[in-house]
Amino acid sequence: MQVLVINGPNLNLLGERKPEIYGSLTLNEINKYVEDYFKNTKISFFQSNHEGEIIDKIHSASQKFVGIVLNAGAFTHYSYAIRDAIEAISIPVVEVHLSNVAKRENFRQESVIAPVCGGSISGFGKYGYVLAIRAIVHRNSSRG
Amino acid sequence: MQVLVINGPNLNLLGERKPEIYGSLTLNEINKYVEDYFKNTKISFFQSNHEGEIIDKIHSASQKFVGIVLNAGAFTHYSYAIRDAIEAISIPVVEVHLSNVAKRENFRQESVIAPVCGGSISGFGKYGYVLAIRAIVHRNSSRG
Amino acid sequence: MQVLVINGPNLNLLGERKPEIYGSLTLNEINKYVEDYFKNTKISFFQSNHEGEIIDKIHSASQKFVGIVLNAGAFTHYSYAIRDAIEAISIPVVEVHLSNVAKRENFRQESVIAPVCGGSISGFGKYGYVLAIRAIVHRNSSRG
Amino acid sequence: MQVLVINGPNLNLLGERKPEIYGSLTLNEINKYVEDYFKNTKISFFQSNHEGEIIDKIHSASQKFVGIVLNAGAFTHYSYAIRDAIEAISIPVVEVHLSNVAKRENFRQESVIAPVCGGSISGFGKYGYVLAIRAIVHRNSSRG
Amino acid sequence: MQVLVINGPNLNLLGERKPEIYGSLTLNEINKYVEDYFKNTKISFFQSNHEGEIIDKIHSASQKFVGIVLNAGAFTHYSYAIRDAIEAISIPVVEVHLSNVAKRENFRQESVIAPVCGGSISGFGKYGYVLAIRAIVHRNSSRG
Amino acid sequence: MQVLVINGPNLNLLGERKPEIYGSLTLNEINKYVEDYFKNTKISFFQSNHEGEIIDKIHSASQKFVGIVLNAGAFTHYSYAIRDAIEAISIPVVEVHLSNVAKRENFRQESVIAPVCGGSISGFGKYGYVLAIRAIVHRNSSRG
Amino acid sequence: MQVLVINGPNLNLLGERKPEIYGSLTLNEINKYVEDYFKNTKISFFQSNHEGEIIDKIHSASQKFVGIVLNAGAFTHYSYAIRDAIEAISIPVVEVHLSNVAKRENFRQESVIAPVCGGSISGFGKYGYVLAIRAIVHRNSSRG
Amino acid sequence: MQVLVINGPNLNLLGERKPEIYGSLTLNEINKYVEDYFKNTKISFFQSNHEGEIIDKIHSASQKFVGIVLNAGAFTHYSYAIRDAIEAISIPVVEVHLSNVAKRENFRQESVIAPVCGGSISGFGKYGYVLAIRAIVHRNSSRG
Amino acid sequence: MQVLVINGPNLNLLGERKPEIYGSLTLNEINKYVEDYFKNTKISFFQSNHEGEIIDKIHSASQKFVGIVLNAGAFTHYSYAIRDAIEAISIPVVEVHLSNVAKRENFRQESVIAPVCGGSISGFGKYGYVLAIRAIVHRNSSRG
Amino acid sequence: MQVLVINGPNLNLLGERKPEIYGSLTLNEINKYVEDYFKNTKISFFQSNHEGEIIDKIHSASQKFVGIVLNAGAFTHYSYAIRDAIEAISIPVVEVHLSNVAKRENFRQESVIAPVCGGSISGFGKYGYVLAIRAIVHRNSSRG
Amino acid sequence: MQVLVINGPNLNLLGERKPEIYGSLTLNEINKYVEDYFKNTKISFFQSNHEGEIIDKIHSASQKFVGIVLNAGAFTHYSYAIRDAIEAISIPVVEVHLSNVAKRENFRQESVIAPVCGGSISGFGKYGYVLAIRAIVHRNSSRG
Amino acid sequence: MQVLVINGPNLNLLGERKPEIYGSLTLNEINKYVEDYFKNTKISFFQSNHEGEIIDKIHSASQKFVGIVLNAGAFTHYSYAIRDAIEAISIPVVEVHLSNVAKRENFRQESVIAPVCGGSISGFGKYGYVLAIRAIVHRNSSRG
Repeated sequence: MQVLVINGPNLNLLGERKPEIYGSLTLNEINKYVEDYFKNTKISFFQSNHEGEIIDKIHSASQKFVGIVLNAGAFTHYSYAIRDAIEAISIPVVEVHLSNVAKRENFRQESVIAPVCGGSISGFGKYGYVLAIRAIVHRNSSRG
Repeated sequence: MQVLVINGPNLNLLGERKPEIYGSLTLNEINKYVEDYFKNTKISFFQSNHEGEIIDKIHSASQKFVGIVLNAGAFTHYSYAIRDAIEAISIPVVEVHLSNVAKRENFRQESVIAPVCGGSISGFGKYGYVLAIRAIVHRNSSRG
Repeated sequence: MQVLVINGPNLNLLGERKPEIYGSLTLNEINKYVEDYFKNTKISFFQSNHEGEIIDKIHSASQKFVGIVLNAGAFTHYSYAIRDAIEAISIPVVEVHLSNVAKRENFRQESVIAPVCGGSISGFGKYGYVLAIRAIVHRNSSRG
Repeated sequence: MQVLVINGPNLNLLGERKPEIYGSLTLNEINKYVEDYFKNTKISFFQSNHEGEIIDKIHSASQKFVGIVLNAGAFTHYSYAIRDAIEAISIPVVEVHLSNVAKRENFRQESVIAPVCGGSISGFGKYGYVLAIRAIVHRNSSRG
Repeated sequence: MQVLVINGPNLNLLGERKPEIYGSLTLNEINKYVEDYFKNTKISFFQSNHEGEIIDKIHSASQKFVGIVLNAGAFTHYSYAIRDAIEAISIPVVEVHLSNVAKRENFRQESVIAPVCGGSISGFGKYGYVLAIRAIVHRNSSRG
Repeated sequence: MQVLVINGPNLNLLGERKPEIYGSLTLNEINKYVEDYFKNTKISFFQSNHEGEIIDKIHSASQKFVGIVLNAGAFTHYSYAIRDAIEAISIPVVEVHLSNVAKRENFRQESVIAPVCGGSISGFGKYGYVLAIRAIVHRNSSRG
Repeated sequence: MQVLVINGPNLNLLGERKPEIYGSLTLNEINKYVEDYFKNTKISFFQSNHEGEIIDKIHSASQKFVGIVLNAGAFTHYSYAIRDAIEAISIPVVEVHLSNVAKRENFRQESVIAPVCGGSISGFGKYGYVLAIRAIVHRNSSRG
Repeated sequence: MQVLVINGPNLNLLGERKPEIYGSLTLNEINKYVEDYFKNTKISFFQSNHEGEIIDKIHSASQKFVGIVLNAGAFTHYSYAIRDAIEAISIPVVEVHLSNVAKRENFRQESVIAPVCGGSISGFGKYGYVLAIRAIVHRNSSRG
Repeated sequence: MQVLVINGPNLNLLGERKPEIYGSLTLNEINKYVEDYFKNTKISFFQSNHEGEIIDKIHSASQKFVGIVLNAGAFTHYSYAIRDAIEAISIPVVEVHLSNVAKRENFRQESVIAPVCGGSISGFGKYGYVLAIRAIVHRNSSRG
Repeated sequence: MQVLVINGPNLNLLGERKPEIYGSLTLNEINKYVEDYFKNTKISFFQSNHEGEIIDKIHSASQKFVGIVLNAGAFTHYSYAIRDAIEAISIPVVEVHLSNVAKRENFRQESVIAPVCGGSISGFGKYGYVLAIRAIVHRNSSRG
Repeated sequence: MQVLVINGPNLNLLGERKPEIYGSLTLNEINKYVEDYFKNTKISFFQSNHEGEIIDKIHSASQKFVGIVLNAGAFTHYSYAIRDAIEAISIPVVEVHLSNVAKRENFRQESVIAPVCGGSISGFGKYGYVLAIRAIVHRNSSRG
Repeated sequence: MQVLVINGPNLNLLGERKPEIYGSLTLNEINKYVEDYFKNTKISFFQSNHEGEIIDKIHSASQKFVGIVLNAGAFTHYSYAIRDAIEAISIPVVEVHLSNVAKRENFRQESVIAPVCGGSISGFGKYGYVLAIRAIVHRNSSRG
């Protein structure tokens, strides 16, 4: 059972950018932290600042993975193209945000991808990725 | 370590109301399901259709519990009084919704309590309560 | 055949409050007036200023009554919790307003419960309750 | 005592158009059904797809009828000219809709004529016309 | 030199409708009053409750008249078809309203025809027609 | 196989009105141009400035034609009555505009009839009618 | 009988500013033109770029003049203080604009003073002042 | 002479909740502080987190008190039911807020009860209750 | 201890303007009434219809007065320049309105200066100035 | 004569994604279908999920093609960068959508590229590409 | 070559007001700083809290100066009268703001004068005046 | 000291695209023009039509440059991802636009990146780049 974790624009700067909001770990450290939580689930990580690459990745994920954890960064708020990509595939996508976006700027209050995701988790920092993977694993097990 | 789970208006009808959205288990069955997941955490359950009772409960929870899991039902969308109650206490509150509210009616798109919650989880059905309790337990452990 | 008539907040003040809009009869006098119209239909009356009590009443009405006539007063305009309660039960609810709300303040122009009611009647004063009960009786007869 | 029932645009297609919403009876069948309900009240029926003809009819109704039942169809939502016509005459006009418009498209949520009508009834199908005529007859009797 | 005065829907009821706003003269009396003001200008009058007839009239006016005075009544607020008709002809159209529409209901605050008229006059009662005709005559003289 | 082309208000002025936008051909010349394109398809033409006549025409077209090409002119932007008429019949209606309305005034940006049409074509001048008829013929052939 | 004509900000630049909209006459030339129209009416002229001076002038006008013609320039769109001044006095104020403001920028579409003026005239250039004075004289005569 | 002071939801937590905004006194201490200010006026205090109880209290206050000082807490922003209760009684209600709500979150900018209150006082901390009672006493004296 | 009372545009007309709203006393009479209330506090009064003069006055008040009571009249609703002036000085400013502005026109519902004032009082007529001065005196005493 | 057909994000998934809306043919099959329609026109096809690649393609198309048919997918609704690219070149661009977007989600109702396209065609499925190419060919012929 | 620098309301308080935003220099010190930058350009400075004086100054500047640098302070956000003044003269006006207004309150996000200025500079503190004067000098030189 | 100038989508077409707005120089010519202005500052230039490449460039610029001049083209209006990139780095970014965007289409009125830039300059054509670099150099010098 494999799960794909996609991180969107500027998440490669984790640890440098606004540590009071996003914490002081780098993306690699967070990925390591998440990986260590799961023994029976293989997790692949992908990060890109390019909307098109994220769309391509979502398209190709359908065969290989049982689900996608997606932190789309700022694309969350305007990329209807990513939304369409999520809607076009058949495996579940879980939306994750490190911070509680409801506490932040107005433009972060709207997620254009949430309506096509299976569920949404925000505000739990790096532990949010763990919860999201659990949700996918759980769903897969209940069905299997 | 104790966690309080509060369910708001109409959640006492679970199992009868819109099973295609909310599932066919009753609230008691869901509570049992959630309880069984946790060995070392004691979980208390409270349900009310009265906004005032939920506020009173939140006020009194502060001393006894390490966190609250709150599915405020329709109060999510207009009860600024519950929002103020959450903001007034010092233990974390995690917002949970059974369904992915982003897929539903317009009025369900706005949560007036989300900005004062520690985090938010929606779309995972009864398993969402499990995830929310885990998040509280995890946070409590990291701090202890 | 029994019908339940629920009156919401401040309707207990009928006869005192704004008689130029709501008329000079008390709620009891109106209930009596309505009761006298129907010989074969038993009518129960309930009034409360508490949103939670109205929700509880709607939940419990389902077994005993063939339909509910609901004048939700000011709750009409913001109680999504009552809306969910109506949507959760299987007997029809008819919305009634004494005055023609379309002629009044802006905030009275939106009914958050109308979309889940079977029908809506406004502007006919106390006679509106009679019409609403007739509609429920008629519907019940056509089906029986 | 005579009452005029005016049906607006596209209601001549009743029975053909969206039977799941409007029912399977033709307008003539509905008119017959309504007529049969009343022994002591003479009812005249008028239908037009032309806004101007409806305005002319409303103007001329003032002398002959004690009230008008108006299902203005789609004109409900934009014909301020019909609104002005209703406001200009002295007999009461009762707004009727077959379906519960609150459940339908956004544009059907606003009635520009409701604020100048005596009352409004929606969601009861053909029986709504019966209720509306009753309301006019009742009002006329209380005054006479 | 001929000027055409067009009155739109419900203006045939002048004298009956809301005399506190529109005055107590009938449309014929107003037309007579206006006619008497002008010796050298022939004035034609037209009234209709039908949007289509007003459009037809505007189209045909172009050859015969030097200008049109238009009180479009409620069509002022939504008839983009009349707007297009005005824009399509080459003689000037002056918008007139009996009352000061800025003092009245919200929906009367927007004129969809004003942007294509030569000018606009409101609030002067029947004398407004006199001013509007003067404006057309004056414009015609300055050019001639 | 017959197709009906309906032109709405002010299109009878084609050739005179704003030739820089609508071109210099008259409506008759355009109709002739369109007719010449099709050998095996009989095309009927109808123009009216009266909303009611267009509705009547749409109603009656259902039996005789395989589809309707509709340039509703300014009615496009507010005639919910025409919208309902289109929705009520079973043959396809294709919306056509001579100009690219997206380039013009704000009020022309919304088509209230587009959601009930089979398709929409704008910006190709008189050739747009040819494309629209082709679309209807094509659809009819694919089904036949 | 005396009438006061008040011109607001930037109207002292008439003749220089945007002659394609406002014409090529200076304010003095326009005043002279207006004055020449009236034999029996004395007209006083006042111009200021200072909102406070216009308010002071309106206050003091009440005793001396039978009415005010006011072209408030850009103050038309935001000076609620001038609006209150107009509302506070008892002589009629007629709003005048040289251009047809309905054809211009969005911000010029709202007049905050129109609801408290007796009437409004726009789009007739300098002749608009003549019409406005006529309206005041006419009103004064009808009352006298 | 008796005055009733009603405090709404979460005000029972004063002293604990956001002391930088609401100060460090408990509600009892504030009540004592207020009471001490007045020798000849008896003051009753009531607090509830239940909207329905506040409505009931307002209804019953009418006979016993000369006025009500109301800090409705978060209900200020959405309880049209409390608004109707205030409007239904004949003694004056003065709205009080501890903080200057104009400086705070957007949702606190609208008071749905202000339009039916006699007056409003905000931003003066506990002293605001003193000012509000003074206003009621003063009003009562001027009338007596 | 000195307090400055500033009255904005049109308040010099008090007693004449809308006495049903503002009362029948002149501004001088109100000032006298206010002055008589305070023995140990010297009160200076300033009125202007000029926004710039009010700004200048606010700037210079800082050295001489312990606080400002400001009834900014219509400037309340749009003068961001006065807002900036209030924000720029260090003594407290209390906003006062004679009438309950929440009951009046829409444009009076927004105060652009409230967010930078220390507090706000409205609806108590001339007694509102007394309350406002008390609030300033009280604040000054608590600090001194 | 060459025409370029550009398909935007997610259109590479045609045949898999929402076949009830987009049909069951793959993009290659549609391209083949379109190609077969035209004998004298060479058609090039390009698809990308990357906004930047589409912009680059549009820039370079100007020399080689007589026109572009563009189905920009979800970019239609927010890519002002593609809009600017279209506006910057001199060959015509025709906007195509497979489905009738007016029937779908709100966010699909606005096309930010439509105002700079030559024309727009939607709702005809794969045949829409044929119509769009015809429009370009026709336009090119009329000019040649 | 002379340039005029106009500073609007409250800028006379520079150095005192919000030094964390506007810096600690007084307006005179800033003017001196700016003056010292330019050897061949004579710079005049003007400050006023009166909108009318700023308009008068703009009108008279046209003959003497080659351009105006304008920091209109809060007038930036509502003075359409200053906007009209800028539009009425022929020399270029450059808008300057000390702070980056895009980071501040909502009401500071709209500049009603920007659309009629030659250019806009914000966020560079006192150095912004230097840049603005350079832009005017540069423009003048390129033309000369 | 090095400064990076980034130009966004479609700016590679400068000289061809809308020369009446953007001028007739190519991007290379503008870059040369800018470079020639500065002797002691090395300037690097980067242009891309790909949002992701611009984000990558901003990320990597942090080590090498003292500041970035950014003309984000159409990305200015919707790329929250670029906004986050700017916010994530520590060197200042100055926003530049060739044209005065305040004069252009509505969608160009909002800059989503302005709130995180150090300052903003628009309307000065190619000279705007010179001013922006000066601002960065000046800031760097004041700090050094």
